[in-house]
Amino acid sequence: MIALSISTQARCELRDITAEIRSLVARWADERQRRDGALLLFSPHTTCGLTINEGADPDVRRDMVGFFGRLVPQFPERFGAPAFAHAEENSDAHIKTSLFGPQLLLPVSDGRLCLGRWQAVYLCEADGPRRRTLWAQWLQGEADE
Amino acid sequence: MIALSISTQARCELRDITAEIRSLVARWADERQRRDGALLLFSPHTTCGLTINEGADPDVRRDMVGFFGRLVPQFPERFGAPAFAHAEENSDAHIKTSLFGPQLLLPVSDGRLCLGRWQAVYLCEADGPRRRTLWAQWLQGEADE
Amino acid sequence: MIALSISTQARCELRDITAEIRSLVARWADERQRRDGALLLFSPHTTCGLTINEGADPDVRRDMVGFFGRLVPQFPERFGAPAFAHAEENSDAHIKTSLFGPQLLLPVSDGRLCLGRWQAVYLCEADGPRRRTLWAQWLQGEADE
Repeated sequence: MIALSISTQARCELRDITAEIRSLVARWADERQRRDGALLLFSPHTTCGLTINEGADPDVRRDMVGFFGRLVPQFPERFGAPAFAHAEENSDAHIKTSLFGPQLLLPVSDGRLCLGRWQAVYLCEADGPRRRTLWAQWLQGEADE
Repeated sequence: MIALSISTQARCELRDITAEIRSLVARWADERQRRDGALLLFSPHTTCGLTINEGADPDVRRDMVGFFGRLVPQFPERFGAPAFAHAEENSDAHIKTSLFGPQLLLPVSDGRLCLGRWQAVYLCEADGPRRRTLWAQWLQGEADE
Repeated sequence: MIALSISTQARCELRDITAEIRSLVARWADERQRRDGALLLFSPHTTCGLTINEGADPDVRRDMVGFFGRLVPQFPERFGAPAFAHAEENSDAHIKTSLFGPQLLLPVSDGRLCLGRWQAVYLCEADGPRRRTLWAQWLQGEADE
């Protein structure tokens, strides 16, 4: 298992990490002949998840961050809902992390990371800015001709 | 990696693709002795995800499509929330795709796709109708007699 | 594939199953030399999912259960939204299960389950109390010294 270190800049942010993942997959193909299988990307944090979404127009991630902020407010009592009990005042970040999920499984074929044309891999920071670690584990597949 | 082609019929739809997946798993077991492991099913799109849910009563998927449509409206400004910025008017579809997730990992044991009695595999179309492609990658496991 | 049996105590509950998973991973490392790869944990149910989140402060799971209960009410007509159609009166449980997702892929390195310091593995019961079964499938990886 390999650890990747990623710095985030805001409390809530979708940070594009596609380039880091592509370069890890290329290195694995080159140095270890890992050509067909999948890369398990895992967030060992409870206030930061992972997702895949559009990488072209920055308005998409802006709309996503805005939407999730309204869906899961940090202080729901300001909107007439019951306050969260957790004393660290980041229950919103825990909830968002479960909505996005803590992991991705990314297909690798013939030594290349396989993403759709518009897809980017995002770390979903929900309680930053912080230095985050992601774990990458190789899983063995098989080529189909 | 294998590509599956699926056509959707509506802007938002849960399309049952269980039969297609079962038949791919059976073919792999037969032709390639892939008997124990998992099938990674991956959507290379940013406005269509994947989920597993009940396949028996069509009211379940109807309730799900209705709920997600109210949770993430295409035009939130009609409900007093800020409008989305993304000019393609499909930020709702991007958000739903991250809520469902872009992938599933389906257990395969002794050459059979393992699903619970009531489970069906769904493509979650959020910006159709379109012709969609899904990628299937085999991951190697091991039998536990 | 191995089946785990878990009992839940309430209609909606986040049940910590980390100890059960750790012990399965240790057993696999010991008896089958499964040291580097991942454990696929799969819920064959349509009203109970899986997630990872904080295990230290019970207020986090209390806040999560409360939030999801308000986000997806069992009887939305009591809050001015359209009633669900599904006659079993558990469409809320189906929706929550798709929000959490039916599976987790947990990294295993050198025979140990790899979780972050604050992470716990949760079964997300949404229509209990019930006896639930989870399936565990080993996927083969490779060590990176």
